[in-house]
Amino acid sequence: MDPLQPLGRARLRDLGLAVGTLPCGPLNAITDVAGVGVGHVTLIEDQPHVIRSGVTAIVPMLGQLWKSGCFAGFDRYNGFGEVTGTHWISEAGLLSSPIVLTSAFSIGVARDTLLALPFRHGVPERWHQPCAAETYDGVLNDGLAAPVRREHIEAAIATAATGPVAEGAVGGGTGMMSFEFKSGIGTASRCVRAAGQSFTVGVLVQSNFGNRRHLTVDGVPVGRELGYDVTPSPQRRDDGEANETKGSIVIVVATDAPLLPPQLNRLARRANAGLSRVGGFGNNRSGDFALAFSTANVLPFEQTGIVQGLTMLAGEDMNPLLPAAAEAAEEAIVNSMTMAATMSGVRGTTVHELPLRKLQALMQRAGGTPT
Amino acid sequence: MDPLQPLGRARLRDLGLAVGTLPCGPLNAITDVAGVGVGHVTLIEDQPHVIRSGVTAIVPMLGQLWKSGCFAGFDRYNGFGEVTGTHWISEAGLLSSPIVLTSAFSIGVARDTLLALPFRHGVPERWHQPCAAETYDGVLNDGLAAPVRREHIEAAIATAATGPVAEGAVGGGTGMMSFEFKSGIGTASRCVRAAGQSFTVGVLVQSNFGNRRHLTVDGVPVGRELGYDVTPSPQRRDDGEANETKGSIVIVVATDAPLLPPQLNRLARRANAGLSRVGGFGNNRSGDFALAFSTANVLPFEQTGIVQGLTMLAGEDMNPLLPAAAEAAEEAIVNSMTMAATMSGVRGTTVHELPLRKLQALMQRAGGTPT
Amino acid sequence: MDPLQPLGRARLRDLGLAVGTLPCGPLNAITDVAGVGVGHVTLIEDQPHVIRSGVTAIVPMLGQLWKSGCFAGFDRYNGFGEVTGTHWISEAGLLSSPIVLTSAFSIGVARDTLLALPFRHGVPERWHQPCAAETYDGVLNDGLAAPVRREHIEAAIATAATGPVAEGAVGGGTGMMSFEFKSGIGTASRCVRAAGQSFTVGVLVQSNFGNRRHLTVDGVPVGRELGYDVTPSPQRRDDGEANETKGSIVIVVATDAPLLPPQLNRLARRANAGLSRVGGFGNNRSGDFALAFSTANVLPFEQTGIVQGLTMLAGEDMNPLLPAAAEAAEEAIVNSMTMAATMSGVRGTTVHELPLRKLQALMQRAGGTPT
Amino acid sequence: MDPLQPLGRARLRDLGLAVGTLPCGPLNAITDVAGVGVGHVTLIEDQPHVIRSGVTAIVPMLGQLWKSGCFAGFDRYNGFGEVTGTHWISEAGLLSSPIVLTSAFSIGVARDTLLALPFRHGVPERWHQPCAAETYDGVLNDGLAAPVRREHIEAAIATAATGPVAEGAVGGGTGMMSFEFKSGIGTASRCVRAAGQSFTVGVLVQSNFGNRRHLTVDGVPVGRELGYDVTPSPQRRDDGEANETKGSIVIVVATDAPLLPPQLNRLARRANAGLSRVGGFGNNRSGDFALAFSTANVLPFEQTGIVQGLTMLAGEDMNPLLPAAAEAAEEAIVNSMTMAATMSGVRGTTVHELPLRKLQALMQRAGGTPT
Repeated sequence: MDPLQPLGRARLRDLGLAVGTLPCGPLNAITDVAGVGVGHVTLIEDQPHVIRSGVTAIVPMLGQLWKSGCFAGFDRYNGFGEVTGTHWISEAGLLSSPIVLTSAFSIGVARDTLLALPFRHGVPERWHQPCAAETYDGVLNDGLAAPVRREHIEAAIATAATGPVAEGAVGGGTGMMSFEFKSGIGTASRCVRAAGQSFTVGVLVQSNFGNRRHLTVDGVPVGRELGYDVTPSPQRRDDGEANETKGSIVIVVATDAPLLPPQLNRLARRANAGLSRVGGFGNNRSGDFALAFSTANVLPFEQTGIVQGLTMLAGEDMNPLLPAAAEAAEEAIVNSMTMAATMSGVRGTTVHELPLRKLQALMQRAGGTPT
Repeated sequence: MDPLQPLGRARLRDLGLAVGTLPCGPLNAITDVAGVGVGHVTLIEDQPHVIRSGVTAIVPMLGQLWKSGCFAGFDRYNGFGEVTGTHWISEAGLLSSPIVLTSAFSIGVARDTLLALPFRHGVPERWHQPCAAETYDGVLNDGLAAPVRREHIEAAIATAATGPVAEGAVGGGTGMMSFEFKSGIGTASRCVRAAGQSFTVGVLVQSNFGNRRHLTVDGVPVGRELGYDVTPSPQRRDDGEANETKGSIVIVVATDAPLLPPQLNRLARRANAGLSRVGGFGNNRSGDFALAFSTANVLPFEQTGIVQGLTMLAGEDMNPLLPAAAEAAEEAIVNSMTMAATMSGVRGTTVHELPLRKLQALMQRAGGTPT
Repeated sequence: MDPLQPLGRARLRDLGLAVGTLPCGPLNAITDVAGVGVGHVTLIEDQPHVIRSGVTAIVPMLGQLWKSGCFAGFDRYNGFGEVTGTHWISEAGLLSSPIVLTSAFSIGVARDTLLALPFRHGVPERWHQPCAAETYDGVLNDGLAAPVRREHIEAAIATAATGPVAEGAVGGGTGMMSFEFKSGIGTASRCVRAAGQSFTVGVLVQSNFGNRRHLTVDGVPVGRELGYDVTPSPQRRDDGEANETKGSIVIVVATDAPLLPPQLNRLARRANAGLSRVGGFGNNRSGDFALAFSTANVLPFEQTGIVQGLTMLAGEDMNPLLPAAAEAAEEAIVNSMTMAATMSGVRGTTVHELPLRKLQALMQRAGGTPT
Repeated sequence: MDPLQPLGRARLRDLGLAVGTLPCGPLNAITDVAGVGVGHVTLIEDQPHVIRSGVTAIVPMLGQLWKSGCFAGFDRYNGFGEVTGTHWISEAGLLSSPIVLTSAFSIGVARDTLLALPFRHGVPERWHQPCAAETYDGVLNDGLAAPVRREHIEAAIATAATGPVAEGAVGGGTGMMSFEFKSGIGTASRCVRAAGQSFTVGVLVQSNFGNRRHLTVDGVPVGRELGYDVTPSPQRRDDGEANETKGSIVIVVATDAPLLPPQLNRLARRANAGLSRVGGFGNNRSGDFALAFSTANVLPFEQTGIVQGLTMLAGEDMNPLLPAAAEAAEEAIVNSMTMAATMSGVRGTTVHELPLRKLQALMQRAGGTPT
């Protein structure tokens, strides 16, 4: 059995389905971008508190941790949520921190830990702004018990590695739900050619948003037919006017294309276009954010006092990357559901999994794209 | 014969198709929002220059022209284009000008005319920032001949009226193309209930963007199958790497819901989500913008020196409006194509119409939503 | 002896000096805005760690804590720093949280505590985004010892009160320095008439920025003459090219004028103009932020499902408020220094106080404004 | 007689005064940045219309006109005004157009002319977004007569040259007023060392804002004493509450330092800090904008399909540039007044010049910085 795959669950492409038309990388994961590392710490306990939480760390350039930064961009689709470090990304276009994804109850722990870590590693000055992001896992997790502690953040960063990425109810995604189905972490990638070279766009999401009736997979509005008969949602309201669920998503986009900060803002915005396409309309109380970084230009913390050489793809050459970010984000969101199994949590709440056979049937009926 | 409907063309709903699930207003047009007026001036000439251009004016509150402003919001999806007046919308959330849509060659004329108009109407001071937007019609139109003049701008505003809205190759949309099909102006609306009341969201687009293979109608990726056999695109490149077309869109969203400026920014952003859903990935050299305004709070220019009363929908009550803006934008874009007929223009270029029967067939095969 | 006044220190107006020309409120403090509460927790310890830190909480509407929010705005002058809750302020213009100012090492604790507090007070759902801001006190404080804990955050909020506000090395400002002098918390206010009514603009700063040679008080460039002979700065570099100190400031602006979110962004921006005027050029690694809120419109968390009535000052009537925010911010920054006494801290570092007599002498020579 | 200097007028440094402490370049002008060209067309007529208007064109890289672009940034201090091309600067950080400064009545003509020009020069495609900015000269100029025409815009660009720059009532600044004194175009520069190299920051302003009582020169609040006895302002209101004048400013910052777009946004923001320091509080109906560009990286329009090499100054090395932009902007604003002579215009209005001897006396009394 694949240790990365929960029993009975599968990635979208394992179901003979896909999103869009562009080819994915060998792992179809954010780690297809060379040097990007991902680490998860998953916290599942029933005593003394019902804990369904965790931490996912993305290290943009594994070999450069606490040594160098990279260019980054940001896009807010809806702002009821928190991502730290974005003032600095908006100001300077720089990311010098791992990106830590965790519970809404614990982003502060993550942020303070990230600030202190370089001091503890002997980096002499405060060279970076910590980047931590959150979505709300209070439906399944007893967040007030504050289960995520400094050591979990440190462990997620310390164990970040290249290679296949565990998906579904793991790491920061442990207690999440999307489109009223169980979800969590998902990832995907796309490969494109631009300016005569091959570039990869990889995406990892911590997905926790969406109204079932809006779920759309590669254009097929499957949510209109999936219904609620099997899987009643704990957050569902029937008040005759609005039937909206709260929720949030953090989308992290990595690329090896040499993009400058404004170009990375654009890539982040296109990832959020993928969010729109899968059925995210950015409910009032959603925190829907995309971060993008490029590993192509390495910016050593201490490299000041010289004029630095860089590389850049012209704007016109970015075009192939734009739908790549949207497609990868869309597929990563779907993977976060297809890889997550039914889970019960605090207050006896159960969040059901997306029924894979029903999804396949609906997609086939619509002539969905087989891989 | 319907004077508003070009021969052989139809609105999406006349084809038994629709976008999304929310009900539309009686006209399925931006003019379903009470008080909103639309006026077109269409310029089609073959001598001495080949002109395929024009002006569309949207007057937010017909009875308040040059007397009162309203709250407005803005969202940029991609910034290779021009919309004037947005510094003031970003700063103060105010719109006191008609919105004029025209050719990229002529937005300056529109802007200067809009500045001078209130002076000519005896409004004593410079109370407003002109709002003019553009997309590029140089594929069919000889823009260097500068066909749009002050009198055309003034006429479009003067003839703005409530009621049905002409679509397709009219007004500012005369020379436009979308997804490499002929397009122009399109409109649609949605009606929702919020806070115990009924509200309307109306959208009008001047649509001039898109890559055929990305065209998606209500989730069906029809562009993957429409092909180029019938309708070669004048802008198409086949360079083995990128096959992107330039282009732009302006989306205008009107609502009678009492929304404040930040809320209207959010509504504009959701209209751009509709753009994403129909297949717009915001090519590098696209100018893709959404403007939103609310007619609920009337703000007289001269009303200063008092504390003014307003109304507002709480953020939580905005939720039904968000997918409404996305759906209406998506359907307006499709209408801009289904209502536009094949047109030839400058340099002998022909831009072909979207084949309606083929669209119907593809939608039916996918189980598309009949009305 | 005034318990609020450190020995030998004084507010700028107690020295016969002032900033600008507008009248201040009775307390010349942020608490001149009715309902605004301020609470400090000051942490000064020498064993086992050298702690010079603390927490300052600003409760926008004391009687509405955890019940109602208000409109808010934001402006970033330079982004090397953290303020949480600003995504929601940018998105919706809403503030439903106390504003907590603390050390850069501890903003995460503050944020997580703020998220959990309403749950602990029985507010049933996650209705707010915590607003916490930081500046870096590592010159005097052993931040890695993590001295600020949940109970300190809760105590600062619980003890927030109207009335006079302690300034200088108290609360979140305990370990701060400005223009290479000891500083901390400062406050000031201005009263203006607009639309026939009287309104108050109050400012509180946690000030930790500035290069001595740039210090300007009410236009007098005193920093050019204050020199370093008495008070060598621990952070000073003399490398022949740049002689910049790092640092940051958080400016909180309160008003009882009925301003909407875009108007509050403008007020925040004018507070940052005050920062410019006192000599802040926003060094590369400064986190310089202004938050503004209005107490005029009370927005109950649970008030949804109705169309809500509001009041607003027209933009034209905002004009008197704009220099008021700049003046109050400038004077609050100066107060944060004139009220702070010399302090020694970690690693034996001493940060000296601004010499008050020398300041008076320089101001008199230049003909500075006596009160 | 210096042909560039109006009778009896002088630059600030010719009066033995200066702003700040940093050294200026040889011309103390934006043209101290190598390759930057400035051209003016001044329109002064009394028949048939009273015209006091004109055009100033800034060509960022004279030898690269219509061939290459450069990186650019932008900052809005207050948004009641128009600058075109800023959507593209915000999106991509690119400037490929000359910057044209003109009357509020004529920015549209400027923009349309700028769009058409490269077509007329044989540049095959629409490669740029025109950048035109305006301030309102309606106090002295009969703008409704539309005196600025296409040929004036083209002439200003065609005559743009390096070398000394005419200031005061010339070009786009012909009909402007600042602090209720006659003003117009002003320029200044600063030289700094960063990363072991020398860099220049040059500023040119079209200045048309300010309330006399706020005028501050190098920290001296001279406006509090200049009074109105000699020079009554046509726009002055005395309504007991507000005594604000409308107005606007456009600040253009050029540098040869290799800055990326986010860094140029920061430089523009610091220029606006200079605006704050001279007494600009951004009145409600001001359009106060700063544009910044760097000539260090030349970006040929047609250079696509390759990965491009660039250079960049690290953020830490930007520090000396930040006060340089503020100082140069402040001094350029003052020069725009000291170089402008009393002018009469439409409706018999006279705008008086800043009295230079009184300015000198007030500065000397305060111990202002002699050069």
